Amino acid sequence: MAREARQDGVTAELSGFAWAPDRFNPRVRATSSMPRAGASPPDVISLAYGMPDPALFPTAGLAAAAQEALGDPARYAVALQYGNVGGNPLLLAELGRKLEGEEGRPVTPGTLVMTNGSSQAIALVVQALAAPGDVCLCEAPTFLGTIHHIRFQGVRTVPVSLDDDGIDVEGLEREIQRLEAAGTPPRFIYTIPTFNNPAGTSMTLERRRALLDIAARHGVPIIEDDAYRDLRFEGEPVPTLHALDRDGLVIRLGTFSKIVAPGVRLGFVLADPAVTERVLAFKAEGSTNGFASMVVGTFMKTGGLAAHIQTLRAAYRERRDAMYEALAREMPAGVTWTRTQGGFFLWLTVPARADMGKVNAKAAEERIVALAGTECFPDDRGTHNLRLAFSLQPPEKIAEGIRRLGQAIRAGL
Amino acid sequence: MAREARQDGVTAELSGFAWAPDRFNPRVRATSSMPRAGASPPDVISLAYGMPDPALFPTAGLAAAAQEALGDPARYAVALQYGNVGGNPLLLAELGRKLEGEEGRPVTPGTLVMTNGSSQAIALVVQALAAPGDVCLCEAPTFLGTIHHIRFQGVRTVPVSLDDDGIDVEGLEREIQRLEAAGTPPRFIYTIPTFNNPAGTSMTLERRRALLDIAARHGVPIIEDDAYRDLRFEGEPVPTLHALDRDGLVIRLGTFSKIVAPGVRLGFVLADPAVTERVLAFKAEGSTNGFASMVVGTFMKTGGLAAHIQTLRAAYRERRDAMYEALAREMPAGVTWTRTQGGFFLWLTVPARADMGKVNAKAAEERIVALAGTECFPDDRGTHNLRLAFSLQPPEKIAEGIRRLGQAIRAGL
Repeated sequence: MAREARQDGVTAELSGFAWAPDRFNPRVRATSSMPRAGASPPDVISLAYGMPDPALFPTAGLAAAAQEALGDPARYAVALQYGNVGGNPLLLAELGRKLEGEEGRPVTPGTLVMTNGSSQAIALVVQALAAPGDVCLCEAPTFLGTIHHIRFQGVRTVPVSLDDDGIDVEGLEREIQRLEAAGTPPRFIYTIPTFNNPAGTSMTLERRRALLDIAARHGVPIIEDDAYRDLRFEGEPVPTLHALDRDGLVIRLGTFSKIVAPGVRLGFVLADPAVTERVLAFKAEGSTNGFASMVVGTFMKTGGLAAHIQTLRAAYRERRDAMYEALAREMPAGVTWTRTQGGFFLWLTVPARADMGKVNAKAAEERIVALAGTECFPDDRGTHNLRLAFSLQPPEKIAEGIRRLGQAIRAGL
Repeated sequence: MAREARQDGVTAELSGFAWAPDRFNPRVRATSSMPRAGASPPDVISLAYGMPDPALFPTAGLAAAAQEALGDPARYAVALQYGNVGGNPLLLAELGRKLEGEEGRPVTPGTLVMTNGSSQAIALVVQALAAPGDVCLCEAPTFLGTIHHIRFQGVRTVPVSLDDDGIDVEGLEREIQRLEAAGTPPRFIYTIPTFNNPAGTSMTLERRRALLDIAARHGVPIIEDDAYRDLRFEGEPVPTLHALDRDGLVIRLGTFSKIVAPGVRLGFVLADPAVTERVLAFKAEGSTNGFASMVVGTFMKTGGLAAHIQTLRAAYRERRDAMYEALAREMPAGVTWTRTQGGFFLWLTVPARADMGKVNAKAAEERIVALAGTECFPDDRGTHNLRLAFSLQPPEKIAEGIRRLGQAIRAGL
């Protein structure tokens, strides 16, 4: 031990203790942390992240709900206490009713549990189903957060291509057979069938049935990430995989982040009780925020949420339309993009001959940000793709952003 | 595949898919889930769990704070959006100021991060510091939740005895030396030095310095669980281990569960940035509830929390005093209990000759519940101990509960 004079004049015995890397779990040294969205400088237009516009947060409705719930001892005595690990009873009842309406079948006890946003739902389900060294399947492209969560658990992801009708079912079955033959059958298939993040496209009913058939024949569970279902701008709803599932192998995940606000951190898992029981075993903090649950449950009970979803649909449809109009006007020939009927995103493909270094340099100069397509693949694809979010910016900023992006892409052609 | 008529008359192809145990991560098969506190029937008096009394929740203050924050776009645009994984800036600033006052030194950026209650803080820190197969040290008795979290991570706990002045420092050093010699140096020491759960006792200043000295000499980090500090009924505050630490090896954990409400699910980690960075890598859900954080941050900013803590001190002191009075009156000779100056608990020791089967049978008949001491040890000790919480029940119920418990213990003598 050395003795050293500290800045405050105290002479302390120093043990030489240091937080060297070997003091930590090797898992965190082997895997990087989740990339986090940062705030952009005010002159930058960001179309990169799937954040809702704070101007659309239902603050008056939440304030009224908070007032009502905090005045009702029957509600707050439960919600503010240590709670059931599965979730707050009021919110479970209200959400269960909503899901029954969507699925056309009862939500039975033990099948629905709350989580801290669907990010936690994804991480918990991955942990419940797979151990380090296991293999799983996902769509390519897919949600970058899921790629991170799977990798962090030491699980290997095999990507299966996506087209405008959803996952390539023939390719999926080939991969399953290959993995079975290799003695590493996939532990699950992760899919975002409705308003895919990042593609914007949705899986057709026919493709959903084919996917379920393959999953059932090979005994592979499906994780259905369904974050955007409520934000449909046009067309008829397609049933969830969970609603179509006759085998109990679909685990449906959802969230209030897009229809209330991300900061309420409320997501859910709807699945066989054998699954939810294991998911909760990994949920160290016990119950999901009872305070936020009680307020959102009250907001639902009073009809506030249903009305708010209508407002959001109109607002986000206007933004999507503004983006499509600007793309048609501003993009050089050869650039293509997906059509979406809802959600937050569309997916842009730049001609393969484009020099993306030049595109990125010009984009930085033009103060426009989109998400690099490479973030949305577990392998090295996506170099000539961009994910564009129309959720955060108002229509006029979207138009200006796409104009700048057009300039950037032209610089690379 | 078999074909089978379903209850709804539809003939479905059944794949034979079943959620057999081998579909899940073996970790959850090898370890049991956290035991959860259940609600007691109304005629039962429970002194078992460390729940605050809902009658003491600051609902008016939280309602006013929610109203104020949800009317301020600068606050809610940040708090309701996807947020910084370390926590909401308003709450970090308010809590940082409170901790600076307690510790007499600055809380520097990156050292303070929010978690979903201190349960999650414990689980995340254990994961960050230890991998399956590692060994750690804890006080015996200790918090049952921590025993669970450590076990769930596949980490082995070596218990070190506790007396009325805190952890047995000579015993601690012997265990460290033994583990070092065995090639399995402990990854950390877990301690609750102030108003220990379950013992109720606090570590003296002298013992704290000795503990820090041993930890520094052997290079073993300390997890200081400090959930009850604010609930001091008498006596002078003793500095936290973190405040006394000159080596940066103490990780202080805290919570709003006891001073606001468990349902706000807000805990924190105060530690070297190398630690908080790794802790956050395991935090899959991103930021801790922004909505609850904003409301509690506003409650602090307006001075509501500081005033509420005074109310709680008076209320819980009255309950503790009621418990001591009843114990002195109702307990048979030979039963002993600890003295506590704060927190939620005291620790009862029944004579070794008592037949605990008879005590438990009579307790069930008398409709009185306490926590079995065996829950508070990682080994098989605690058979003749009970943890008594004076937090949930009002004074008259505490008196009646202790009367019943006295009857139960008499039945075993």
